[in-house]
Amino acid sequence: MKLLEERIVQDGRVLSEGVLKVDQFLNHQIDPALMQAMGEDFANYFEQKGITKVITIEASGIAPAVFTGLSLDVPVVVAKKNVGITMTDELAAADVYSFTKQQNYTISVSKSVLSKNDTVLIIDDFLANGQAALGLMSICQQLGAAVAGIGIVIEKSFQTGRSLLEEQGADIYSLARIRSLENRQVEFVEENLSQH
Amino acid sequence: MKLLEERIVQDGRVLSEGVLKVDQFLNHQIDPALMQAMGEDFANYFEQKGITKVITIEASGIAPAVFTGLSLDVPVVVAKKNVGITMTDELAAADVYSFTKQQNYTISVSKSVLSKNDTVLIIDDFLANGQAALGLMSICQQLGAAVAGIGIVIEKSFQTGRSLLEEQGADIYSLARIRSLENRQVEFVEENLSQH
Repeated sequence: MKLLEERIVQDGRVLSEGVLKVDQFLNHQIDPALMQAMGEDFANYFEQKGITKVITIEASGIAPAVFTGLSLDVPVVVAKKNVGITMTDELAAADVYSFTKQQNYTISVSKSVLSKNDTVLIIDDFLANGQAALGLMSICQQLGAAVAGIGIVIEKSFQTGRSLLEEQGADIYSLARIRSLENRQVEFVEENLSQH
Repeated sequence: MKLLEERIVQDGRVLSEGVLKVDQFLNHQIDPALMQAMGEDFANYFEQKGITKVITIEASGIAPAVFTGLSLDVPVVVAKKNVGITMTDELAAADVYSFTKQQNYTISVSKSVLSKNDTVLIIDDFLANGQAALGLMSICQQLGAAVAGIGIVIEKSFQTGRSLLEEQGADIYSLARIRSLENRQVEFVEENLSQH
């Protein structure tokens, strides 16, 4: 997605060979018009898949996910890291390992919002090691829901996430695929530049 | 907002005299079309205020906030409970007391996303004791930004939040104002029913 790649070049900052800071438009400060364009792009790619629900993880996945849900006209489920006092229904849960924080966290989804009748699109802001998406796939599997695809805002293609998810048979669509962050430069995967 | 009040009656569940569960359309599962309508309603109410940024707290405030930002054509700042490794700029912070969890948590905003040139609209999903909104007001004050108003999805009018915020001179606009949750029934403040 050319609009997103241009924005990454303009406002992103490479903090190290593995870390891209995009908190001016995606994480900490959010550009709603960009989110809307991203949601439309995800919906356009997955529109023939019979999606009944979008799912994401709080907090950074929520903005792209709600615009995708709006475009597909389906509800959005937010897997919770912190289970509040109102989540009184039975839960499905999965442990996710964070390489950044070097620890596990648990994500939870109420059984009342996802079932075997659902065909799910997973949306997340980053794909690096794929652990968050694998956790969401596990929850969908536990609840009998089919995973129709995975939509990613920014894929770090130099990490192992995509291949891990493709081994599970996932159809992954990333709006920006980064080949390298070496020398504090963002280099995109070339096919992406030509396709979008 | 009639659409929201009807949805609360239809899908909300009163768990106790103080707790309303709305995780079928607002917190855990999100209805994007309802969020869009809510965002338009907030934008309509505050459109003459010269808003330059919307601010909210992760995670449940994000969905209504991004649609408000889209309608007002301004960026959305998400105050973080968990400061990630990419938040390397200097931060403004405030402690927020959670009556539900009976403990303090800290919210942080990077100084790079809010300044004295900003006029801010605070958006949050619930107004109960007003502590979260007071924390956001404190951060705006620290960074010299003006607070033009507070938009709330669901106000528990039987709690002290509104009067605390009004003492600070805040212009509060709530889409649904709940007078009572007694006897497991949702009763709205009547003026709200007649206005919307």
